Amino acid sequence: MRTVRLAIAQINPVVGDLEGNVELIRSHIEKVEHCDLAVFGEMSLTGYPLEDLLLKPGFVADNLEALKTVASMSGNCVLAIGYADSDDDGVYNSVAICQKGEIVGRYRKQNLPNVEVFDEVRNFSSGSDELNLFSIGGTKIGFVICEDLWVVNGPVDKLVNGGAEIIVAINGSPFHQGKQQEREVLVNEIAQKSNVPVAYVNLVGGQDELVFDGGSFITNSQGVVISRSPSFYESLVISDILVDDTKGTQNSLSIVDVSPPKSHEGNLQPPISPVLANNEELYLALVTATRDYVLKTGFQKICLGLSGGIDSALVATIASDSLGPDNVTAVMMPSRYSSDHSLKDAQQLVENLGISSIVFPISEIHSSFSEQWILNLDKELSGVTDENLQSRIRGVLLMAFANANNWLVLTTGNKSEAAVGYSTLYGDTAGAYAVIKDIYKTKVYELARWRNETSENEIIPTSIIDKPPSAELRPDQRDDQSLPPYDVLDPLLESYIEGDRTRIELVEDGYDSEIVEEIVKLVDRSEYKRRQNPPGVRVTKKGFGRDRRLPLVNRYKG
Amino acid sequence: MRTVRLAIAQINPVVGDLEGNVELIRSHIEKVEHCDLAVFGEMSLTGYPLEDLLLKPGFVADNLEALKTVASMSGNCVLAIGYADSDDDGVYNSVAICQKGEIVGRYRKQNLPNVEVFDEVRNFSSGSDELNLFSIGGTKIGFVICEDLWVVNGPVDKLVNGGAEIIVAINGSPFHQGKQQEREVLVNEIAQKSNVPVAYVNLVGGQDELVFDGGSFITNSQGVVISRSPSFYESLVISDILVDDTKGTQNSLSIVDVSPPKSHEGNLQPPISPVLANNEELYLALVTATRDYVLKTGFQKICLGLSGGIDSALVATIASDSLGPDNVTAVMMPSRYSSDHSLKDAQQLVENLGISSIVFPISEIHSSFSEQWILNLDKELSGVTDENLQSRIRGVLLMAFANANNWLVLTTGNKSEAAVGYSTLYGDTAGAYAVIKDIYKTKVYELARWRNETSENEIIPTSIIDKPPSAELRPDQRDDQSLPPYDVLDPLLESYIEGDRTRIELVEDGYDSEIVEEIVKLVDRSEYKRRQNPPGVRVTKKGFGRDRRLPLVNRYKG
Repeated sequence: MRTVRLAIAQINPVVGDLEGNVELIRSHIEKVEHCDLAVFGEMSLTGYPLEDLLLKPGFVADNLEALKTVASMSGNCVLAIGYADSDDDGVYNSVAICQKGEIVGRYRKQNLPNVEVFDEVRNFSSGSDELNLFSIGGTKIGFVICEDLWVVNGPVDKLVNGGAEIIVAINGSPFHQGKQQEREVLVNEIAQKSNVPVAYVNLVGGQDELVFDGGSFITNSQGVVISRSPSFYESLVISDILVDDTKGTQNSLSIVDVSPPKSHEGNLQPPISPVLANNEELYLALVTATRDYVLKTGFQKICLGLSGGIDSALVATIASDSLGPDNVTAVMMPSRYSSDHSLKDAQQLVENLGISSIVFPISEIHSSFSEQWILNLDKELSGVTDENLQSRIRGVLLMAFANANNWLVLTTGNKSEAAVGYSTLYGDTAGAYAVIKDIYKTKVYELARWRNETSENEIIPTSIIDKPPSAELRPDQRDDQSLPPYDVLDPLLESYIEGDRTRIELVEDGYDSEIVEEIVKLVDRSEYKRRQNPPGVRVTKKGFGRDRRLPLVNRYKG
Repeated sequence: MRTVRLAIAQINPVVGDLEGNVELIRSHIEKVEHCDLAVFGEMSLTGYPLEDLLLKPGFVADNLEALKTVASMSGNCVLAIGYADSDDDGVYNSVAICQKGEIVGRYRKQNLPNVEVFDEVRNFSSGSDELNLFSIGGTKIGFVICEDLWVVNGPVDKLVNGGAEIIVAINGSPFHQGKQQEREVLVNEIAQKSNVPVAYVNLVGGQDELVFDGGSFITNSQGVVISRSPSFYESLVISDILVDDTKGTQNSLSIVDVSPPKSHEGNLQPPISPVLANNEELYLALVTATRDYVLKTGFQKICLGLSGGIDSALVATIASDSLGPDNVTAVMMPSRYSSDHSLKDAQQLVENLGISSIVFPISEIHSSFSEQWILNLDKELSGVTDENLQSRIRGVLLMAFANANNWLVLTTGNKSEAAVGYSTLYGDTAGAYAVIKDIYKTKVYELARWRNETSENEIIPTSIIDKPPSAELRPDQRDDQSLPPYDVLDPLLESYIEGDRTRIELVEDGYDSEIVEEIVKLVDRSEYKRRQNPPGVRVTKKGFGRDRRLPLVNRYKG
């Protein structure tokens, strides 16, 4: 048996920040000199996904320069770094193998995902290099990138059949609920079937609507996870992988000789970070994505409208957990229709979290609009026009606070609302980041309760969780006057949105036909609102972002 | 020589409206019974592009049902209809050949564009059927779809080498400036090189950010255009194509025998519609896209903020030309900083166009915000916060008018502004459709002058065209206080945006380095605003829509 000492550098690069990412990689290189190989995630040099930045030849050239800098830092430990390679035929999602100051090899991703949130066929060409193995620490290692891993009769099979003793897969695999289990089931099966250990290296951190959850791991040749990096945190995990000397003797693939065996002291088997439970991973996903969006766009502080309802209460709590209570200002903007308990509940939450707050009643401004409306148009403001107006006055105020203080505005709408359009464009949807836009209302309650359970003291007041949801835009308004109860609505929405079912199929599935008719119409009619909604983190298999691209002009009745 | 009588049905289908599109096709079928073949554009049955509607199996099934209905209407004239075919391996962008009530053949698009605004790899599988020729009216015809036409050694070469006597290409080819010339140069070359006539059939009409300009045409085997449908209008053009009896005798491709030769009376050579000049085609593109967005989303009337500046003046004129003056309401919302001449100029335009108008001063509402700001925060409203506030009050009012009257709001920002972020999110960007979002400011002036020239009486008052541009959000504000002159700015923007140049390259190109530094920073920083801007028609080779997908978190310095 031989030992390969493998460092998994699970990093959080910033898209486009070549200098910063090089420094981040450098800080890890300093700690891995005693290893055989240190692996960084997919496009770790540039951040991921880069989208149309890759159409700019100057950017690709700069990334190649940055790669040379990284290679120049490499010493005895071989580095595997994700970057954008290029030639006359295109740009390639690639991994570079670097050692002793040089780039000694590369692998170009062959299978480009062009589904869900991915547009890789748009931005990359497919690699067609002949496959190599790299002899690192005397062990034959085959590299693949993300999607390559999942393809039957793809590069993994060829590398294994060609003599690979370890497969290293670098990934930029975004989170959705339960994703870590999905990954491990698949990789464990591949490792076991191939009888070869697999190292799965992921990125971590938020990028626009995606959050990478890390959770990098190594599965041994029996299909058992022997190392796992934490979810949602940067980490450097160094493990020894045992390689059977008697295997991999027939090599049908050519081998690039990179580094000889090293003698390693001891046997590094660091503690295995746990796979997180559902609500914890979901909550951490929201916290991580929010923090990274705010900080990576160069902001520090945020504000949000705090109504006393459950959605804004949860978002305030996430914001406080993300950025620290000192960086969060809750703005309470009661109108003539706001209930007393709403303001009281909101104030209790502010106190529990230790965040700042502003109270700014909107009644006077609302009256000013109403008076001017009568004066100029000789009519009364009423109905939905008047309801939307209140929401929009709040949006205008939040943006003014943001402008005046250099804050970002977080919006507080949930996925159920976004789905049926139960929101006011430029009102409650006004802001930079929509923290819970991919969380259905029933899940909002679940997360609020879960967050309270993690704390000794109550954080989100029970009265906020228990009261019937209301937009409070007219007297005695309640959500259930306009919508079915959320425990009926949410599964229906999930089936229509994530499941791509039609109206007729939903009725066949057992949903009430009147409700189906009404809800499908609402979802379809609200596409124009969603198109102008702020970005927010995707945590399901189909979020309202790059995941679901529907025409605005669309007369299909669902 | 033989004659084939070909009908080009250049139609404007509505995405998803299967019933409506079937009726539209039926209305044309009634007029082509004396022809050999009637051709409709790409995905003419369903509208195009369908985007993720194609991920809904129920929709694809409904489209196949609709195709059967169309086939059942077919008689002696063979129909070629674009639709979505499907099998267990995927969904295909296809053309169906129908005759005497039956579907007698099909062709599936082989080359799927996945660049610019197109995501066809996401939504379609690539066709791999063996190529056929269809003998229609005794003439061997090869069918291809859009991108297939442009591929070297692609299906066109194979069809021609296999004995095709005519190539029919169905297209969903969106407009950009000068596109018709580009198409004809390419098609004429193909026809001449292949020595085979080519019929190029396009869609017409607006769909979200795209506008299809029609301009369908037939090029003879000498590479000369012998028939052309009008740009931007639905039409049915029937022409006779002469086919050389002595050619196409070796057939290496199998032939589906569809219909025998017909004897045709006369020789139909209808007048050839002209290719439009630059400003005319551009203006018609804006008119068509605006009309179709409003009408196809089920609205009839629009409103817009009319400031007295050139942008809103042009948009009001386009709106009036699109929908008729009775369906347009201009809202004038002067503030304490608005100049008298602005209101006067706006009123003159209203009169010239014969549209409706509302005057709604915002000073009182503005004061109410200011007073409440002092009262609640003990501070004065000032600077950019106060400038944005005025713009947002106008946005709120426009949305209130829209809500109260069931109007759509058109926004009036141009591409130069959108590029540098010289706009207020939820203020002047609030609305449903951004008519001139892809028109640089210098072009706005050009179009305004052109529109005036087409009319006997002045439409857009010269004083609007001649005065220095200003947002009028503070005393004596002028655009050139914040931005370089537009004739410097616009070419720089075009080079940075459409040309994907970097900062360094732009300086090498001869631009002033300080200006480059400033403008690139502004463009990059405004990505978050553009992400929440309303849709608007794309008329350049790279609009701010599906065309240019940049990350929001992006630290690349350009």
